[in-house]
Amino acid sequence: MDMPKIVDHKKQREKLAEATWRVIRRDGLERASVRNIAAEAGLSVGSMRHYFSTHSELLAFSMKLVSNKVNAQFQSFVSTGNLQEDILQLLYELLPLDKERSAEMEVWIAFTAKALVDPALQSLSLQVSNEMRAGISWMIDSLIQYEPGCSHLDAKIETERLLALIDGLALHAIMQPDHVTPELIRSIVIHHLQSLLKH
Amino acid sequence: MDMPKIVDHKKQREKLAEATWRVIRRDGLERASVRNIAAEAGLSVGSMRHYFSTHSELLAFSMKLVSNKVNAQFQSFVSTGNLQEDILQLLYELLPLDKERSAEMEVWIAFTAKALVDPALQSLSLQVSNEMRAGISWMIDSLIQYEPGCSHLDAKIETERLLALIDGLALHAIMQPDHVTPELIRSIVIHHLQSLLKH
Repeated sequence: MDMPKIVDHKKQREKLAEATWRVIRRDGLERASVRNIAAEAGLSVGSMRHYFSTHSELLAFSMKLVSNKVNAQFQSFVSTGNLQEDILQLLYELLPLDKERSAEMEVWIAFTAKALVDPALQSLSLQVSNEMRAGISWMIDSLIQYEPGCSHLDAKIETERLLALIDGLALHAIMQPDHVTPELIRSIVIHHLQSLLKH
Repeated sequence: MDMPKIVDHKKQREKLAEATWRVIRRDGLERASVRNIAAEAGLSVGSMRHYFSTHSELLAFSMKLVSNKVNAQFQSFVSTGNLQEDILQLLYELLPLDKERSAEMEVWIAFTAKALVDPALQSLSLQVSNEMRAGISWMIDSLIQYEPGCSHLDAKIETERLLALIDGLALHAIMQPDHVTPELIRSIVIHHLQSLLKH
């Protein structure tokens, strides 16, 4: 009789995380109270304590799910055998080029703003930033090692420049979707990569 | 007897905007309720209606003050007579390279996240983004026109690339001040500008 309960517990937590996403996307993070999330998930406020002991823990869990999704996309990546093409495809994974990725980014921006003042979210936000940095750093290091035209690149400066470019583009795509379109984003990322190769 | 009242009204609105900033920076935007802002400013909740008819109007006014400050910094800019140096100095004005600018950016990030779900803030957020874009666009156009090495740059792609880089760097400087330091930001901006000149 224990197994189903454990499965239910995990499923219920994920269900609550998804309800949290819906509330944040529709009404903003400041409306994502325990009460509103419970209502969205069709649960009583009292039963919430069974799944999450604090509000921050619920938000952190929802944030972690976004991060897990992005990591899963990276893990399942199949190399094309061409380094430049691989880098391009991996960078596209980090950008809101489709509806699902845009939804993740919207929730992420709300979390990021809240992480500035909530220590419980800060460490997770930093952890994800560092995962992003490690991924971008791997791309730059690979270019320096394998592309003859890239041997003189400054690894630290190019890593931080590309990281800032990607997050800036993601932010603008969410805030101004009519102006910063997927087509424009792809052109900018390709141009940036080419400018590194011509260094 | 009317003049002092008008002056007081303007001053009181600015005082409330500053109280709003302090609450947002200390506790996050979701704590910036009318009640908490009134308490911070030392006013009664009832008297708030005299200065702002809605919560969104108060937030929009506070956001507008950040935008006005940045514009004032641009307006008072004195050209060095050297285009590259002018562009560099103007870009530095848009980045959180000192404490005051960092505080403005923190409030700005919180507003930006809220603007995603609050139509009253959205139009102002878009207006400021477009002012930023116009400034960066002027820089790129000037480079194309006056710097021989830049004549082949794609104005639209380079404008959006620089705009995304600046906002990405600002975001990272706020989120990870120990990692993305003012020195690193200056190096990246100088390197980006040089890479445009060498195009």
